[in-house]
Amino acid sequence: MAVAIGVDVGGTKVLAAAVDAADPATVLAERRVPTPAGGDGVVEAVAGAAQAVADELRAAGRGAPAGVGVGLPGLLDRVGTLHAAPNLPAAVGVPVGRLLGRALDVPVVVENDANCAAWAEVLAGAGRGAADAVLVTLGTGIGGGIVLGGQLLRGTHGFAGEPGHMVVDPSGPECPCGRRGCWERYASGSGLGWLGERAARDGRAPALLDLAAGDPGAVRGEHVTRAARGGDAGAGAVLEEFSWWLAAGLANLVDLLDPEVVLVGGGLAEEAELFLDRTRASLAEQVLGSAARRRTRLDVAILGPAAGAIGAALLSLEATSTPTAG
Amino acid sequence: MAVAIGVDVGGTKVLAAAVDAADPATVLAERRVPTPAGGDGVVEAVAGAAQAVADELRAAGRGAPAGVGVGLPGLLDRVGTLHAAPNLPAAVGVPVGRLLGRALDVPVVVENDANCAAWAEVLAGAGRGAADAVLVTLGTGIGGGIVLGGQLLRGTHGFAGEPGHMVVDPSGPECPCGRRGCWERYASGSGLGWLGERAARDGRAPALLDLAAGDPGAVRGEHVTRAARGGDAGAGAVLEEFSWWLAAGLANLVDLLDPEVVLVGGGLAEEAELFLDRTRASLAEQVLGSAARRRTRLDVAILGPAAGAIGAALLSLEATSTPTAG
Repeated sequence: MAVAIGVDVGGTKVLAAAVDAADPATVLAERRVPTPAGGDGVVEAVAGAAQAVADELRAAGRGAPAGVGVGLPGLLDRVGTLHAAPNLPAAVGVPVGRLLGRALDVPVVVENDANCAAWAEVLAGAGRGAADAVLVTLGTGIGGGIVLGGQLLRGTHGFAGEPGHMVVDPSGPECPCGRRGCWERYASGSGLGWLGERAARDGRAPALLDLAAGDPGAVRGEHVTRAARGGDAGAGAVLEEFSWWLAAGLANLVDLLDPEVVLVGGGLAEEAELFLDRTRASLAEQVLGSAARRRTRLDVAILGPAAGAIGAALLSLEATSTPTAG
Repeated sequence: MAVAIGVDVGGTKVLAAAVDAADPATVLAERRVPTPAGGDGVVEAVAGAAQAVADELRAAGRGAPAGVGVGLPGLLDRVGTLHAAPNLPAAVGVPVGRLLGRALDVPVVVENDANCAAWAEVLAGAGRGAADAVLVTLGTGIGGGIVLGGQLLRGTHGFAGEPGHMVVDPSGPECPCGRRGCWERYASGSGLGWLGERAARDGRAPALLDLAAGDPGAVRGEHVTRAARGGDAGAGAVLEEFSWWLAAGLANLVDLLDPEVVLVGGGLAEEAELFLDRTRASLAEQVLGSAARRRTRLDVAILGPAAGAIGAALLSLEATSTPTAG
């Protein structure tokens, strides 16, 4: 079967991984390098990591990769140019796809990182077999990827699948995007920290104040999950609030898209046992016409931190096997 | 070319219309009957109206219709049974599609009413030529229809395309659905009335208070549009607020779906000149990464009150011409 390389560019590291299409959940070879600060030189970093993995494949007798896929955090148009990327400002406007294709001499596909992860989960992870699936990745912000009718939803300009800045409370906290009350202010890792901070300020969570050395502004999501694991009631109540907000945004997505399955991935998904059941119950209540419809399945993504790279690799195979694409 | 009949079931009336697929914006024959209160007998009312139009077609020498499509207000599953319908409670659980197919002896397709209108606008209206389009209908509530890749988005269970109950402010006004701050509390006809009522209570819109005979609770959307047409500044400010809320929800949809065009239909769209430009400007600001992307086209639907019936008719032709469907 065909082997491909996927490269996932995160805020701090670039992960390149090789997978075989016959068993994409198994990474054959991988390489991690630091993400160039600001995104300057990101093309060279991606090319270097992909080349290192390609060399390792060749040394193992697997031949050349059939394609390379790259997942980038930001708004990408359909020819692989970044239009907005808070973590990679220097890469905005760079035709990443074209430059990498030239550097690596194989077909290169460039896609939004959460779109890659969604594609991987649908083909080889927790969404396997679902024609319609939504993945939300909970990290510093909220990323998203939407698969409908077995196809990745890219949108007319390539910008589809961005639920993080859905406004869910216009009088809520300010968001770096310039608006107020975006969903990711509540239902991401940093959102959990903000809910914890608010509880600490209000005297509802003294344990969080202790973990943050008495400074409510220093409360982070990790403090909330740690205190909740220790049985702290105040932290538990914060996770209850978090679950409501997570479910509120997911209900908006289910009302619009009616997918078979909704998956939660990203760093915070590792703590899902602390909030998944409550989120399921709240989602079932908040979806439109909930009493009259079957529950939408809500599960945790299973491919972990390599999901983006795996999905990027699989998307490159998709493109090279479709004569009309690329 | 094939002629089909579409029947749109509204809160107060049932509209049956015949169209020719070659020129679907032109209604060949139509019939209006009152919607049975509560939805009891709705199958008979739809069958009667469709039969009357079929008789008129035959009398005009156009032969029998190739299909009948029905648009219903509510959540419909993929075999045409209503699962939730606030305006037709007696019809919930009724297998409308199957009963009508038997009564009319032609293939019958049943679909959500706003989905039908979206399909009509994409095939023959303001969205013509767009592969990816979203229609929102602004009436008492907000309905929606989504077309992606040239296909109507139905969702896994048939319930997709319901943006009206997107929560946009959890501390907002109560919604009949049981939640608070649904988008349609702000950006529908009744939402406009509520914004007007609030302005009247706060002393910001004395002209609205006059139109409502001094009772702020009696302020309706029509009062706001009438006063604004008369040049009243307070009503103009209410429409400014309304435009912001409309754009806020549309920005959520654009972030998720990245369509080529967004259309606004429904009764309130007839007053669009009072709010469309402001909504366009606000949407351009509120969409994620607005500075880095082209504006999404925002326009008014053009097929008017017959859009739902036209779309239902066209969907029935779609189904009968596709061997794998129906």
